[in-house]
Amino acid sequence: MSFEVTILGTSSATPTLSRHPTSQYLVCNNQRILLDCGEGAQMQMLRYGIKMFRIDKIFISHLHPDHYLGLPGYLSTLSLKGRIEPIHVYAPAGMGEILDVHFRHGAIHLTYDLHIHELPSSENFEVIYQDSGLEVSCFALEHRLPCWGFLFKEKKSPFKINEDVIAEKKIPVKAFSYLKKGEDFIDDNGILYSVEECTIPNLPAVSYAYITDTIYLPALAENLRNRDITLLYHEATFMEDLRHKAIETYHSTTLQAANFALKSNAKKLLIGHFSSRYNDLSGLLAEARSVFPFTELAEEGNTFTI
Amino acid sequence: MSFEVTILGTSSATPTLSRHPTSQYLVCNNQRILLDCGEGAQMQMLRYGIKMFRIDKIFISHLHPDHYLGLPGYLSTLSLKGRIEPIHVYAPAGMGEILDVHFRHGAIHLTYDLHIHELPSSENFEVIYQDSGLEVSCFALEHRLPCWGFLFKEKKSPFKINEDVIAEKKIPVKAFSYLKKGEDFIDDNGILYSVEECTIPNLPAVSYAYITDTIYLPALAENLRNRDITLLYHEATFMEDLRHKAIETYHSTTLQAANFALKSNAKKLLIGHFSSRYNDLSGLLAEARSVFPFTELAEEGNTFTI
Repeated sequence: MSFEVTILGTSSATPTLSRHPTSQYLVCNNQRILLDCGEGAQMQMLRYGIKMFRIDKIFISHLHPDHYLGLPGYLSTLSLKGRIEPIHVYAPAGMGEILDVHFRHGAIHLTYDLHIHELPSSENFEVIYQDSGLEVSCFALEHRLPCWGFLFKEKKSPFKINEDVIAEKKIPVKAFSYLKKGEDFIDDNGILYSVEECTIPNLPAVSYAYITDTIYLPALAENLRNRDITLLYHEATFMEDLRHKAIETYHSTTLQAANFALKSNAKKLLIGHFSSRYNDLSGLLAEARSVFPFTELAEEGNTFTI
Repeated sequence: MSFEVTILGTSSATPTLSRHPTSQYLVCNNQRILLDCGEGAQMQMLRYGIKMFRIDKIFISHLHPDHYLGLPGYLSTLSLKGRIEPIHVYAPAGMGEILDVHFRHGAIHLTYDLHIHELPSSENFEVIYQDSGLEVSCFALEHRLPCWGFLFKEKKSPFKINEDVIAEKKIPVKAFSYLKKGEDFIDDNGILYSVEECTIPNLPAVSYAYITDTIYLPALAENLRNRDITLLYHEATFMEDLRHKAIETYHSTTLQAANFALKSNAKKLLIGHFSSRYNDLSGLLAEARSVFPFTELAEEGNTFTI
């Protein structure tokens, strides 16, 4: 069981020699997910050894080109390699039209089914995907274009079977689902398999909140407060002295990202989407840490366990 | 006066760890030109120190995504940096619609004028741009989509003023244009400035032919024979043992590229657009050189003087 994120791109709109447009690779247990897909994402996946063919879900935050321009090329590459498993893209209205115009002019017929799910226009948290182990919801941010954040929450039973006692107590497989939920199980012969004897408490479920391209939204941070954010990614395009620039361009500063982390009660903060004006990022890190010490830089190629 | 090409990307449709989608940067005297603009071209320009803001003409060979996907991002970056000088894009029909869908959904209003010139559908050589120093013509290739090659020809007067005698003979500026064309000049006082005394023969004009994504076209090579090709770029997606694959996918092999160079009487050949199956390119080079010894690999970051 693993829950981790690898940074593929962390520039703001203008890339630099060492920073590519936004993209992240998220592994949630068996799910492999792409978060935004900036220009060059497929090359970054090659560079960092990401198994790009295992991804089957892509979440696009908004339709500024630095957040999705890698998508037509990545989807084409999968097709050239003969992929047959479907791909699901969760994106703002318009993504389908954009992809269609590329595929039409390039006479590209994908070898797999591409399902495009339009993000809902409601402002509240809305679940857009779930299975037995993962729940993904989206929520509105505030940028120059409609923009969404995403919350990835692990789904976990409160208890797990104590492997040390499975053989000794001959726990039948049938009992597992009851015990994991915290319910005792009695088999057909009347033998009791109690939660207390057969299980240990599971590790708490973890979660990842992805918030890019937005002005500072303290009300959203309050809303996230009771959602147990293990790792928060919040854009920090500018340092604090350029707050006016952040406001003007609908972005955030280091201190705003750090205050958001504080207010939302996140355990850890990752900052990224750095303006091309910063060569050295240590000043941004220091500024964010002055408010929220558990901050790290989203640097390309780094993997963070959630 | 310089005429040189820098390779920015040389992969075929699927990029590899060391090869990016097609793009080349061409300097023809004062002109700075982009030839195709595959995904990641703007990052490659940063990597190789190309002054991307000086480019004002972009030629796109065809609408397969590996040849133009870098264009929306590159054009957006120029706008974010506040460019005001116009950009001219010479591309197949459809390029305008593709760019428009990106700009519309991204609410992007370019800070400069973007002129899109649709490539003509005629099969013959057609001049699509010229000024006092450069002539660009396009011609039809044969690929799975309509595809064009481009011929960049330096325009040069046959003579240049002999700088050693300018002062000595007090050659008036007014005489220069006559002398360069090979005409004697007599000033108002009846003094003769002769071509023989005042000029030296100019270096011959050079030319660059760019031929990517096509089956082998020997008739085109014959057509190019009298056009004095100094440097020929010809795709060589496959080695000769995969000729059937080249035919099937409308591409060329190393030997076909080399034979094209022979037939067209080009002075030098650059091969590129290599299939992702080749890690080591030395076999492709050896194969091409067995037919045409003056062959080089179009490797990224390399600059070739024309």
